[in-house]
Amino acid sequence: MCSPLCLEALYGRASRRDFVKKSLMAATAVACGARAASGAAVATPAAQQPRTFTTVLDLTHALYEGFPTFDGSKWFTMEKKFTFAKDKLNINTWTVVEHIGTHMDAPFHFTADGHSVDEIPITDFVVPLAVVDISQRAQDNPDTALTPDDIKRWEATNGPLPEGCCVMMNSGWHRILASPKFSGRDDAGRNHTPGFHAETAHLLLTERNVKGIGVDTLSLDPGLKGVGGAFPVHYEWLGSGRWGVENVANLDALPAKGATLVLGGPKVRGGTGGPSRVIALV
Amino acid sequence: MCSPLCLEALYGRASRRDFVKKSLMAATAVACGARAASGAAVATPAAQQPRTFTTVLDLTHALYEGFPTFDGSKWFTMEKKFTFAKDKLNINTWTVVEHIGTHMDAPFHFTADGHSVDEIPITDFVVPLAVVDISQRAQDNPDTALTPDDIKRWEATNGPLPEGCCVMMNSGWHRILASPKFSGRDDAGRNHTPGFHAETAHLLLTERNVKGIGVDTLSLDPGLKGVGGAFPVHYEWLGSGRWGVENVANLDALPAKGATLVLGGPKVRGGTGGPSRVIALV
Repeated sequence: MCSPLCLEALYGRASRRDFVKKSLMAATAVACGARAASGAAVATPAAQQPRTFTTVLDLTHALYEGFPTFDGSKWFTMEKKFTFAKDKLNINTWTVVEHIGTHMDAPFHFTADGHSVDEIPITDFVVPLAVVDISQRAQDNPDTALTPDDIKRWEATNGPLPEGCCVMMNSGWHRILASPKFSGRDDAGRNHTPGFHAETAHLLLTERNVKGIGVDTLSLDPGLKGVGGAFPVHYEWLGSGRWGVENVANLDALPAKGATLVLGGPKVRGGTGGPSRVIALV
Repeated sequence: MCSPLCLEALYGRASRRDFVKKSLMAATAVACGARAASGAAVATPAAQQPRTFTTVLDLTHALYEGFPTFDGSKWFTMEKKFTFAKDKLNINTWTVVEHIGTHMDAPFHFTADGHSVDEIPITDFVVPLAVVDISQRAQDNPDTALTPDDIKRWEATNGPLPEGCCVMMNSGWHRILASPKFSGRDDAGRNHTPGFHAETAHLLLTERNVKGIGVDTLSLDPGLKGVGGAFPVHYEWLGSGRWGVENVANLDALPAKGATLVLGGPKVRGGTGGPSRVIALV
């Protein structure tokens, strides 16, 4: 017997330079047939199937000093190094804490030795996009989460999640970047922002073939789940070797199904994530 | 009369927040008809035409401390801010001088008030790709340049440059990142690396419709043209409102014609350029 969960366990133990274990995992998946391949880390290369687009959309917020962060810290600064007035060219120096702006999370962000941003295959960054809209519910309840029922409702309308896709939560938060509601920090320092329910991450890991998940909020986890370091979705999702993307913009411009996501993540050796250009091809 | 050059002059004077002038330029281009539109800053939105791909290629070198720079300075450093061993998650802090690694140049890099990275329309970042291979000549002469004749030779084989494309120089330098030959710095501090000839940039500006140019070397200009701040291609090309991309990787994997470039540039407010994820869809 070989379930997606056993592959998961293998993958979770594989160090990012341990090619022997990874090869073993891949071989095991092939030996175990289609069910394993559709449910776990060894995915159909979706980008190898012909994809067509006519429209390009930017899903990226501009980054600036003071961009909201999970704990209110200043995680991006910029200084002028050369100026046109003085030097006849402009160059700036940035200081960047990796998880700022519209940015990705690599497995290494929440693992001892998972893939860093530079180690993720480029085919995992160009994938079908499924947008799950919970914005109406979230408007009244910032502590809501994207549940397994939301996935099932999406599939009832749109058919099964595309193989190797990214599941993106549209909570409406991308519309309110400038508002204090974006971080939703209360007097006790807890954030009130929507995210993925832990059960949803588990469903997508074990019963679907999904490359990444994305949110238009500060965290893959609902804000309240990040307090005290619980982060159940971060630990399980990134721990499985998959990526996430946060603070995504412009989601109302997307169809629920049919777009292709291009995650232009940074290629920094050993990076745990970082500001990304997120593009949709529709 | 309205030539591409007159549009160019208008565009060159337009400040990046001077929407009146830009609107005037666009209106002028429309009034002047197809020739102006195909030759200058107001381009056909190439990404609006259906494009199909089956393969995804990464054209990005991984970035690391010590990545070669134009003058040998260290322009990227990374420090651990949180570690899994101590904090149960990993986050790094980067210090980035914008023009490091595989990176883009925005018009603002070599102008007083041109577009910064965040102000370039996303449709300009997803464009047809024309790869001009001068690697055989460059192997014997690192001071060679991509000339107008190289463009005409490419067109004789492949047909006219695609509307709104990126013209990419393959000098073979992407194969030798780890070699001292990559910067080609001599004892007098001059770099010996291939780039675009100034006459080629001028041809592409005035007689073709090209969104961006790219190189697999440290500079759009040949190394020797950068000494003392001459940079003729940087000044004319970026001065016209177009972008460039440098230190591009993996060019031998590309066809001369038919790929689509996705320039995943940083979206930093006021940024002059920066590390980018450069992807080809083939």
